[in-house]
Amino acid sequence: MHARADGYENGRQRRQTILDAAFGYFARAGYHGASLRDIAAAAEISYPGLRHHFPTKDALLLAVLVQREERAAALLEREDGRPVLDRLVALLEANAAERGLAQLFARVAAEASEPDHPAHGYVVERYARIRSHLADGLGADAAAGRIGAGVDTERAAVALIALADGLQTQWLLDADSVDMAAELRRSATGLLAG
Amino acid sequence: MHARADGYENGRQRRQTILDAAFGYFARAGYHGASLRDIAAAAEISYPGLRHHFPTKDALLLAVLVQREERAAALLEREDGRPVLDRLVALLEANAAERGLAQLFARVAAEASEPDHPAHGYVVERYARIRSHLADGLGADAAAGRIGAGVDTERAAVALIALADGLQTQWLLDADSVDMAAELRRSATGLLAG
Repeated sequence: MHARADGYENGRQRRQTILDAAFGYFARAGYHGASLRDIAAAAEISYPGLRHHFPTKDALLLAVLVQREERAAALLEREDGRPVLDRLVALLEANAAERGLAQLFARVAAEASEPDHPAHGYVVERYARIRSHLADGLGADAAAGRIGAGVDTERAAVALIALADGLQTQWLLDADSVDMAAELRRSATGLLAG
Repeated sequence: MHARADGYENGRQRRQTILDAAFGYFARAGYHGASLRDIAAAAEISYPGLRHHFPTKDALLLAVLVQREERAAALLEREDGRPVLDRLVALLEANAAERGLAQLFARVAAEASEPDHPAHGYVVERYARIRSHLADGLGADAAAGRIGAGVDTERAAVALIALADGLQTQWLLDADSVDMAAELRRSATGLLAG
């Protein structure tokens, strides 16, 4: 029983080591530029060892994106007294430093709108969860007088996510023309004045 | 010379007949559901005849998307005295009736942010052109008192496109929760009040 728990723990750590290495490779090089062999080398694991945890590049990519989204959710949902908009701006600033991953997530989110895509359920659920958490956070902001009292928090959450996603699309296409964090702050401030 | 011009004209018409048929198939069935053989049958042209004009499904898809974007541009850039926001709302309403094409465009736009994607230059140029036309239109709206006089038209154009794209993402994932045309009107009205 003890040995088994250790084995599980080792497997879990090895999986995380691979994910950390993959995170960096996908962020820098994107999907096509990252190779499973390079990632295995960076994680100091054999190629078959990596394939044991992640049989395909797609499986590894999905695991990386899930972990990235969990990090984003933790940032957005943290109860730290900061206005929702500040947290969302911080998220876009973090994304701006990881162009490859931002690009990959945008691609997967677009593909996943097809109902038979393997990540469809996951992405739909993620959006619903973020929408609900942002609306709750905006409710707290309104109660504390940080945004207009008349703001419809459900609708504003939809609009904030849309602005963030859409600005990211333009930034990915033309980073020199669009400072997505600054644009989000500017546009959303008007939107949240109520 | 005359015969040659006729041949050219016939080829052009046949190409357009294929595009019209493909438009319907991609809009209804998406990329995977549409087959070149079905599209050839619907266009009443042989399969090799279709392949002569469009050697691959990707080539046909790109041509369909280019034509869809030209239609969208014509709608957005028409000088009909309507406020820019009305024209953008009309465009989202048109997109809502063509889910398959909207899905495909979102996917191609996301993929095309990779600089080596075949449609990269086209998509970047399209966004720059729409941005510039919307900013011009918003300038006319401001001069006519249809939107706030203090609105930064360049920034507002970026935000409007972002809202429209981002709302479309959420609508594609969950059409029951997001009425994208209504949400755009609601959010953008605040944004354009100045």
